[in-house]
Amino acid sequence: MISSVSLSLPIALDAMGGDKAPASVIHGAQIALRDYPHLRFIFFGDEKQITPLLAKHKDLKLVSEIVHTDEIIEMHDKASAALRSKRKSSMRLAIDAVANKTASAVVSSGNTGALMATAKYVFKTLPGIARPAITAFMPSQNGEVVMLDMGANVDCTAEHLVQFATMGDAYARAVLGLKRPRVALLNVGSEDLKGHEVVQGAHQLIKDAHLPMDYIGFVEGHDILEGAADVVVTDGFTGNVALKTAEGAARFIFSTLKASVEKSLLAKIGYLLARPALKKAMGKLDPRARNGAILLGLNGLAVKSHGGSDAKGFAHAIGVAAKLVEQDINNKIIEELTQTGITAALTMPSMVAAKPAALASESVN
Amino acid sequence: MISSVSLSLPIALDAMGGDKAPASVIHGAQIALRDYPHLRFIFFGDEKQITPLLAKHKDLKLVSEIVHTDEIIEMHDKASAALRSKRKSSMRLAIDAVANKTASAVVSSGNTGALMATAKYVFKTLPGIARPAITAFMPSQNGEVVMLDMGANVDCTAEHLVQFATMGDAYARAVLGLKRPRVALLNVGSEDLKGHEVVQGAHQLIKDAHLPMDYIGFVEGHDILEGAADVVVTDGFTGNVALKTAEGAARFIFSTLKASVEKSLLAKIGYLLARPALKKAMGKLDPRARNGAILLGLNGLAVKSHGGSDAKGFAHAIGVAAKLVEQDINNKIIEELTQTGITAALTMPSMVAAKPAALASESVN
Repeated sequence: MISSVSLSLPIALDAMGGDKAPASVIHGAQIALRDYPHLRFIFFGDEKQITPLLAKHKDLKLVSEIVHTDEIIEMHDKASAALRSKRKSSMRLAIDAVANKTASAVVSSGNTGALMATAKYVFKTLPGIARPAITAFMPSQNGEVVMLDMGANVDCTAEHLVQFATMGDAYARAVLGLKRPRVALLNVGSEDLKGHEVVQGAHQLIKDAHLPMDYIGFVEGHDILEGAADVVVTDGFTGNVALKTAEGAARFIFSTLKASVEKSLLAKIGYLLARPALKKAMGKLDPRARNGAILLGLNGLAVKSHGGSDAKGFAHAIGVAAKLVEQDINNKIIEELTQTGITAALTMPSMVAAKPAALASESVN
Repeated sequence: MISSVSLSLPIALDAMGGDKAPASVIHGAQIALRDYPHLRFIFFGDEKQITPLLAKHKDLKLVSEIVHTDEIIEMHDKASAALRSKRKSSMRLAIDAVANKTASAVVSSGNTGALMATAKYVFKTLPGIARPAITAFMPSQNGEVVMLDMGANVDCTAEHLVQFATMGDAYARAVLGLKRPRVALLNVGSEDLKGHEVVQGAHQLIKDAHLPMDYIGFVEGHDILEGAADVVVTDGFTGNVALKTAEGAARFIFSTLKASVEKSLLAKIGYLLARPALKKAMGKLDPRARNGAILLGLNGLAVKSHGGSDAKGFAHAIGVAAKLVEQDINNKIIEELTQTGITAALTMPSMVAAKPAALASESVN
C-alpha cells in the first residue's frame, strides 16, 4: 500500500539490483533522506530481506513502503529475455510505478541492458528519438561536460548519434543552463576524414540538416576533460570505456603518487599538507560522488546507478533522480527539442531515410 | 648517397611528417643521438628545409644523410589516395628504405592512416595476420601493459581482434619478458553476455580455438591502468579514445590539483615539497615520455610518433625504434607465433571461415 504524503516526492527503488543489494539500496536511501528530507521511497523486492534492513533505520521506515516480489533480474540475464519473461521483477515493478504515476522516478543498480530495454518498453521514447542514452556528467577544466551514451547502446547508427546530440544539447540547456552548448562527436582525430562510417555519417547528417545547435565537429579523448565541448556524443561502447578509463587513470595517479611520496620524508610532509587539496581534485573523478546517470530520451525518469555501487554511491544516484524530478527535466527537454525545431528536423523524411553507408567516408583498411 | 658506417644502426626518418616537422624531426634526432650514439639517420624530405636545420647540429650532421623529395603526405590526405599517387613522398621513401635494407626501421609522425596503409603494402603482414595494429605501452599498478590497437584500424572484425591478441601476446613475451602474459579483450563489462558482436565474436573464437595463450576474458576501462591484464586488445577507435582520455584525465588532475593548492598556503608549501614525487607520477602518463608505438604485425619495423609531438617526443619514438631493432623484435614475434602454434591455429580453415555475425551474441537494442 502506498501512503499519501501529498507534498513528498516518491521515488521507486529497485531494491534487488546491484552487487551489494538490497543492503546498499536501503542504506543508500537512508543517507539520501538526510539531504532530501522531502523524499519518500517505495522499495521493490524481497520483503523478507528488506524488512529487517529497514527496521534499522527508523526515520527511513516512516517514509517507506515495500512492494514485495520474488522475481529478480540477474546481472547475466539477457535484456530481451528479462523483458519478456520477468514481468514481476523488482526492476520492472519499479519502472511500472513511474509509468502509473505512483512514483516520480526510478533508481536501479541492476542489469544495464535490462533496465534500458524495460524502461524503453514501458515509458516509450520522446518524439524523434529511437533509443534512450545513458547520460552522465564528466568533470572538466571549464565545469561539467554532458556525455552520452555511457553504455546503453553498444551498437549505434549515425542517426542514433545525431539523436543523442540533440538530446544532449537540450539536456545541457536545461540542467547546466547553457544558452548555446558546444556539441561535439567523439572521434580519433579532429580532421574531417577521421573515424569510422558511423561517426562520419553522423557528422555529415548534422551538417546537412543544419540542426539548430552549436555543432563544433570532432573532439578526441583528451578533449573531454579539457572541456573542449559542453556535450560529447559517442556510442555506448566507446563512452563506457572512456568513462571507466578516466576513473582508472585517476586511481592510478593517486596510488602512484602515494607510493612515490612514501619514499621521501620531505614529500611525505608535503603530501600531508597538500592532502585536502589533493582529495578535492580526486573527488571530482570519484565514481561514488558522480554515481547516477539518467536514461535520457524516455517519457519517464529512470536513473542508472553503477552495478557495484555502495550505499554512498546509491544515495548520490537518488539525489540525481530527486533533482531531475524537481527540475521537471523531461518536459524541459521536450520544450527544448520542440522550440529549437529539432523534433521537426529529426522526423523529416530526409533525415530518416539517410543511411551512413551511402555517405562518402574514409576508414583505414 | 648512404654512407657505410658498418656497426651503426641506420634509422629512416620521415622528416616532413607531423605538425612540427621538419624541425621537431631533426632536433629529435639530435636528442636521440645523445642516448643512442650508435645510431645514424636518413632524413627523407625537402633538402632546402632540412639542410639548414642539420647545419645547427654538428654531431648529428656527421651521421646523417638527406634523401630529397618534394612530395609530402598531408594530414588530411586519404590513406588510399596517398598510397596510390604519392609514391615519392617522404613517408613512402622512408618505408621503402627499410624494405630494401638501407635502414633498420622507420619513424614517422605523419598521417596515421597513410603510414599504416603504406607500411602494410610495402612490408606485407606476418603469417596469419591480416592487419597491423598500433601497439603501445600503458602504465599500470603492476608495470607496463601492452595495448593494441591504438588507432590504426577504426573498424575491426572479430578475427582481427583475435589476431591482435596473438600478436600482443608474442610482443609481451618478447619485450616484457613475461612467460604467460594475461591477455584480455576490452569490453563494457566482464560478464560473458556484455558487448557488441565483434567483441563477443572474438571472445568465442579465442575460446573455441583453444589458442595457447593465457586468455582471461573481458576487462573494463578501469582495469587497464589497474594492471588486470598484461595485454589489452581492442579496436583502433576504442583504443585511441581510451589512451587519449587517460592522458586527458592525467592533465586534468594535475591542473585541478594546482588550482586547489593555490588557494591555501599550507597546501602550497606541501605541493612544493611533494612536487618531485608528483612529477614522477605524472611522468608515467606524459605522452611525450611514452611517444612511439610500433605498427605490430608487419615484416618491417615502423614506429608511429604522435602527429603533434615535439623534438623530445620524437626523440623518444626514435629510441623505441632503436630498442626494437636491437631486440630483433619481428623475428622474436614470428618465433613466438610459430612455437606456440598460433600461426597454425590462425590459418586453420575453421578460424578463417568463422563469422562473428553467426555467433550467438546479445547486444542491447
